[in-house]
Amino acid sequence: MLKIRKAVKQDWHGIYKILSEIIKKGDTYAIEPDAGEQELKELWMAKPKACFVAMEKGEVAGSYYLKTNQQGGGSHVCNAGYIVHPDIRGKGIGRGMCAHSLETALEMGYEAMQYNLVVSTNQDAVHLWKSMGFAIAGTLPEAFRHPEEGPVDAFVMYRLL
Amino acid sequence: MLKIRKAVKQDWHGIYKILSEIIKKGDTYAIEPDAGEQELKELWMAKPKACFVAMEKGEVAGSYYLKTNQQGGGSHVCNAGYIVHPDIRGKGIGRGMCAHSLETALEMGYEAMQYNLVVSTNQDAVHLWKSMGFAIAGTLPEAFRHPEEGPVDAFVMYRLL
Repeated sequence: MLKIRKAVKQDWHGIYKILSEIIKKGDTYAIEPDAGEQELKELWMAKPKACFVAMEKGEVAGSYYLKTNQQGGGSHVCNAGYIVHPDIRGKGIGRGMCAHSLETALEMGYEAMQYNLVVSTNQDAVHLWKSMGFAIAGTLPEAFRHPEEGPVDAFVMYRLL
Repeated sequence: MLKIRKAVKQDWHGIYKILSEIIKKGDTYAIEPDAGEQELKELWMAKPKACFVAMEKGEVAGSYYLKTNQQGGGSHVCNAGYIVHPDIRGKGIGRGMCAHSLETALEMGYEAMQYNLVVSTNQDAVHLWKSMGFAIAGTLPEAFRHPEEGPVDAFVMYRLL
C-alpha cells in the first residue's frame, strides 16, 4: 500500500540513497553524476516549491519534486522530477507519483506541466508519461550525452492540466 | 559600426536601461515584469557564463548572455538571451549578436544552442532565429501568458553548432 505525503527533513536520507544511485549512472537526469549531497538536497528538496515521498513499509520508495518551470508569463507551467527505488520498479510507484503530482500541481494553481529533458533512450519513462497524458512537444537532437550510447536525442514533454 | 565585446561592470547601467524596459512589457521574456534591478543583474550578468554588449557610438545598443542550459549529460548545450535597444531595432544588431554568440559558444566548447521559451507572437524573433539556422524543435501549447493576447504558444528553438 503506497502512501504519498509531503517530504519532511527526516526523509532526506532515504531520498538521497535513491537519488544518488540514479544520478551516479548519469543516463536519465541532466545532473552531474558526481554532484555532492548538499547540491542534490538544494536541487530536489530545498529549492522546489514542493517535495513528496512515496512510502512503502515505512521506507522511502520514491520521491518527486514540483517547481515553477519559468517565471513571468511562463509561471503557470510547472516542472516535476521523479525517482523510484531501483529494487521496486515496475510496481506502479512512478505512475502513482505522477498522478499525485498532476493533482497537486492543479491544487497549487498551475495550468500545465513540462518535462524539459526526457532522455529518448529512457523508454519506460517516455511510455509512462505518454500514458499519463503527456505529449512529446519537441525533440532536441543529440541534447543528451548518454554514458554508454553517446549523444542521444532528448524530448520536451508537456501536458495541460 | 557595431562593436561586440565582453561586458564589464560599468556596462550594467546601459544594459539595465534596455532590459528593464523590455521586461516591464512582459510580452517576450519569461521574467517577472516587476523584477528588481539586483535580480536582473544576477540573471543577465552575474550567473551566466558570459555576458556581451553591442556598442554603438559609445553607448550600449544591445546585450546577450550565454549559459549552460542543463547540467550533467546535457551540459554541452548552451542557452542565450538577447536584448536590443527599442529605438534601434531592425538594424541587424540582434542578428549580429546572434552570430557572435554562436561563434563564442563554439569557442567555449558547446555543441548546440537552445532557446527554451520563444513566445510565438514574437514573430520578428522567430523569423530571425530561423534565418540563423535554428529550428522550432517543439511547440508548448499556451505556455506563455501574453499581457494583451492572453495564453499563447511558446516555441523551443534549437540548433547544433
